[in-house]
Amino acid sequence: MAQKKLGKQTVKLENPPSIISTYCIVGPKEGEGPLKDYFDLILEDDLWGEESWEKSESKIQNETIRSAISDAKITENDVDYLFAGDLLNQIISSAYSARQLQIPFFGLYGACSTMSESLSLGAMIVDGGYADYTVCATSSHFSSAERQYRYPLEHGNQRTPTAQWTVTGAGAVVLSSNGNGPYVTHVTTGKVIDLGIKDANNMGPAMAPAAVDTIVQHFKDTGFRVKDYDLIITGDLGILGAEIAEELIAKEGYDISQIYTDCGIEIFDNEKQDTHLGGSGCGCSASVFAGYVFKEIKARNLNRVLLVSTGALHSPVGIQQGETIPGIAHAITISNSK
Amino acid sequence: MAQKKLGKQTVKLENPPSIISTYCIVGPKEGEGPLKDYFDLILEDDLWGEESWEKSESKIQNETIRSAISDAKITENDVDYLFAGDLLNQIISSAYSARQLQIPFFGLYGACSTMSESLSLGAMIVDGGYADYTVCATSSHFSSAERQYRYPLEHGNQRTPTAQWTVTGAGAVVLSSNGNGPYVTHVTTGKVIDLGIKDANNMGPAMAPAAVDTIVQHFKDTGFRVKDYDLIITGDLGILGAEIAEELIAKEGYDISQIYTDCGIEIFDNEKQDTHLGGSGCGCSASVFAGYVFKEIKARNLNRVLLVSTGALHSPVGIQQGETIPGIAHAITISNSK
Repeated sequence: MAQKKLGKQTVKLENPPSIISTYCIVGPKEGEGPLKDYFDLILEDDLWGEESWEKSESKIQNETIRSAISDAKITENDVDYLFAGDLLNQIISSAYSARQLQIPFFGLYGACSTMSESLSLGAMIVDGGYADYTVCATSSHFSSAERQYRYPLEHGNQRTPTAQWTVTGAGAVVLSSNGNGPYVTHVTTGKVIDLGIKDANNMGPAMAPAAVDTIVQHFKDTGFRVKDYDLIITGDLGILGAEIAEELIAKEGYDISQIYTDCGIEIFDNEKQDTHLGGSGCGCSASVFAGYVFKEIKARNLNRVLLVSTGALHSPVGIQQGETIPGIAHAITISNSK
Repeated sequence: MAQKKLGKQTVKLENPPSIISTYCIVGPKEGEGPLKDYFDLILEDDLWGEESWEKSESKIQNETIRSAISDAKITENDVDYLFAGDLLNQIISSAYSARQLQIPFFGLYGACSTMSESLSLGAMIVDGGYADYTVCATSSHFSSAERQYRYPLEHGNQRTPTAQWTVTGAGAVVLSSNGNGPYVTHVTTGKVIDLGIKDANNMGPAMAPAAVDTIVQHFKDTGFRVKDYDLIITGDLGILGAEIAEELIAKEGYDISQIYTDCGIEIFDNEKQDTHLGGSGCGCSASVFAGYVFKEIKARNLNRVLLVSTGALHSPVGIQQGETIPGIAHAITISNSK
């Protein structure tokens, strides 16, 4: 058996990469939320001087990556691979961002699970000796996502009570083969799970079963107990999805209620900010991780965290053709000790 | 320096994974082309009993993966990771295919470069000891791609002389940590290159500079000479793009003319089949590799091949917003000896 496999879906990294820097940029609405003090840059307007929201999103991602690299005190030339993705068709935010960088590029699509997908692959590639440095990054933008997935904003459509709010923001993480942590120590890769939900305005419950499957499998594969973690954070199940996930995980024998939250719950004051069931989008778990979670780990307020970005692998065309919504969740362990 | 790095963009695999099986399914038009005897299954109609071309594409990809796994004499349960992508928005062909499989899934988007992107990542993950088996797969479908990227087929639009024809087909490759070859020995990962071409109906020239960059870098990184290869095959530059690539590579001091071709040139009799400048789409290099190239390597008519799938990372929205077309190309070496 492959020597680094641990159980069915997990690998244990033998030379755990260090996270040597993170950076995140968010839009004005995110900058008014409860995590505002953790974000590296809060934009005053979500076009950021560009002519379209799509161009703005790409700029946000690119500047996030550049800042993460410069904060790591390395140069673009030192980075072996960029793993990046976003929500736009043909992941153009990432492609247009990567064309401004002289870094070999792996484009990913995992919907809102892309942040932990990129960290999973980036970490294995560094751990395996294929790279000294990788950058893992994702972005999303409320306005570009709304018009692609739902309605043009000009339409002024009313949002359903179960809707989530796509985060305008990006996060980038620099992984290094050298460093003193925090370390990425374990990677649990998710399967696609589809229990038949069809409502594209209610994605938390569609993704919850995938989060449950991955988290439970992670416990089984690693032998970790709930108390080994200071925080388990999914992204972005939102209020309803997180409630369902917590309950289903409890049924499997793991009571995570004391240490569990969701990036979509944390990023907004959902009642006051009218974001309904919470934040969503690749940029949600990216900015919550790169901003809040990582800084709390660095400050040793948290010592071991399981980040579980979750994605709804649906598409407007699929929904029109009567398809249900497949979900996926990838988990990575970030720890101050190896 | 990371021990498996070779030069700037290449890694040399120390425990090169074996390709233990490949499978490909193509549509009726591809089945009338010059490679027809190499394809594992040729469909009689491109809907294959489904209600939409999108559903058909997903079925084609799924059946290709299942057949590759069963030909490898393993089961779904033995496969550690599926690396897959396609051209449809939100890569739904792959997501809907993966939801029918109990295999941890990494979704990729590299446009038509996705076949070598999936093989690059799959090979490193097996080589590094993270997996015993990975499946790498991509698909495309002429009819689903036309209506997404260009016009609905019902529109009966005339094709420009520089157009390429999206291949209906899928290819899947099973990589194993155990086996007697053919081996994946080197991986050269491409950067995003954009020289400013804007015409989405002339993608070969837009992608050619990326292919040139990756192939020249591969020679520099590895020290291989042209005569070390029996075949260098790009996919899918088409007739014009391949001509440009060959010329630009010659200018860099590497005359590959005797051993070079392009998947888009080979899959159709482009004059007789009215496919203009050649085939394109993820399914093109996937089916040409899984069908023709791999079988010729197995038969030892070819001993060392460089597969260079090329992608145009454009999007209809990007084109509408005046963006130029970024290209990318990833190269992998497949060889009968380690």
